[in-house]
Amino acid sequence: MRDGEISQAVVRRLPRYYRYLGELLENNVERISSGDLSKRMKVTASQIRQDLNNFGGFGQQGYGYNVKYLYTEIGKILGLEEDHSMIIIGAGNLGQALANYAAFEKRGFQLKGLFDINPELEGKKIRGVPICMMSELKGFIQDNRVEIAALTIPKEQAVKVANMLVDNGVRGIWNFAHVDLNLPANIIVENVHLSESLMRLSYNICRYKEEHK
Amino acid sequence: MRDGEISQAVVRRLPRYYRYLGELLENNVERISSGDLSKRMKVTASQIRQDLNNFGGFGQQGYGYNVKYLYTEIGKILGLEEDHSMIIIGAGNLGQALANYAAFEKRGFQLKGLFDINPELEGKKIRGVPICMMSELKGFIQDNRVEIAALTIPKEQAVKVANMLVDNGVRGIWNFAHVDLNLPANIIVENVHLSESLMRLSYNICRYKEEHK
Repeated sequence: MRDGEISQAVVRRLPRYYRYLGELLENNVERISSGDLSKRMKVTASQIRQDLNNFGGFGQQGYGYNVKYLYTEIGKILGLEEDHSMIIIGAGNLGQALANYAAFEKRGFQLKGLFDINPELEGKKIRGVPICMMSELKGFIQDNRVEIAALTIPKEQAVKVANMLVDNGVRGIWNFAHVDLNLPANIIVENVHLSESLMRLSYNICRYKEEHK
Repeated sequence: MRDGEISQAVVRRLPRYYRYLGELLENNVERISSGDLSKRMKVTASQIRQDLNNFGGFGQQGYGYNVKYLYTEIGKILGLEEDHSMIIIGAGNLGQALANYAAFEKRGFQLKGLFDINPELEGKKIRGVPICMMSELKGFIQDNRVEIAALTIPKEQAVKVANMLVDNGVRGIWNFAHVDLNLPANIIVENVHLSESLMRLSYNICRYKEEHK
């Protein structure tokens, strides 16, 4: 199966299916009906059947879905069966928080290094991964064929650093800086704009109050 | 103007307008045309005109938009003119990263405390805000009329803690735990599922490779 056949709307929902199926697997659940999955995930059973039909050839009437098979297939679509070599630029609290999240590794994201400009951090390790200085970055990317870089640095530096990363072969940027990176079309950028997320929360609280006063 | 009049699609785009207008203000730009804003934000000028028409009564033909006025109006819609009392549960790297982000405060989010179970953190302060023990949480929420809680704790504890927060008056949860919180309908939850974000990045890198091989 080629992932091109699956609609973008389904793809946006896949990580959530993947998370629920992973939890079922951890609890040794082998099969689950769309009705049961529907109750857990709070989406309709018909939505689930429609979405998972994209993976065809299973989910037989009355037998439910094979959890492990579905989990594996969705993992393939999401690119989690391949190894992704990754670095983190910015070894402050946020960078270290990402580095400490071990679950990334079991999904194929191999953290190779963290980079910072603070000399006090040089040589320190986070879960065995060294913090290096920014001056070593260029050579490191080339030597380690780094595919993904997480940017947890201030917006003032983010644009320049992103361009340098891309010039040296990085394919995807996980951008936590509060700025839009205008990069070539072949570079994938996934933004996590935390302040925008907090504003949506604030908006929805205010709207709720307004509607219920 | 009541925010109920503005469509959800526009609302989702507002934080980004707010960010760009804030940057223009910092650079002392008083007026901007939809064409100029369009070039900066990489959206069409007609989209911008349509979105900002919701705020009516300005953006006169040939004069452009009054940056400060627009910024203020969008801020009001997003609830940023009101103070939001906030706490962070989990004072690990991620919790401390959020606490260190000073820009939240200038948008009305008042960080009152961080909470953790690690006794070594007790009494430590992050930008003047104390780290307290979880045993003090209940009284603290009531005394400080806490509106928003950021959850940066493992999923195993998140559900229980979220219920306790809600029972004591918290209105909105900024959820970084890898779990869906099933809370009453009057509670606003804004999820930041970082692992799902990384999977979308991985998916898009793989899809790009597939399409261009």
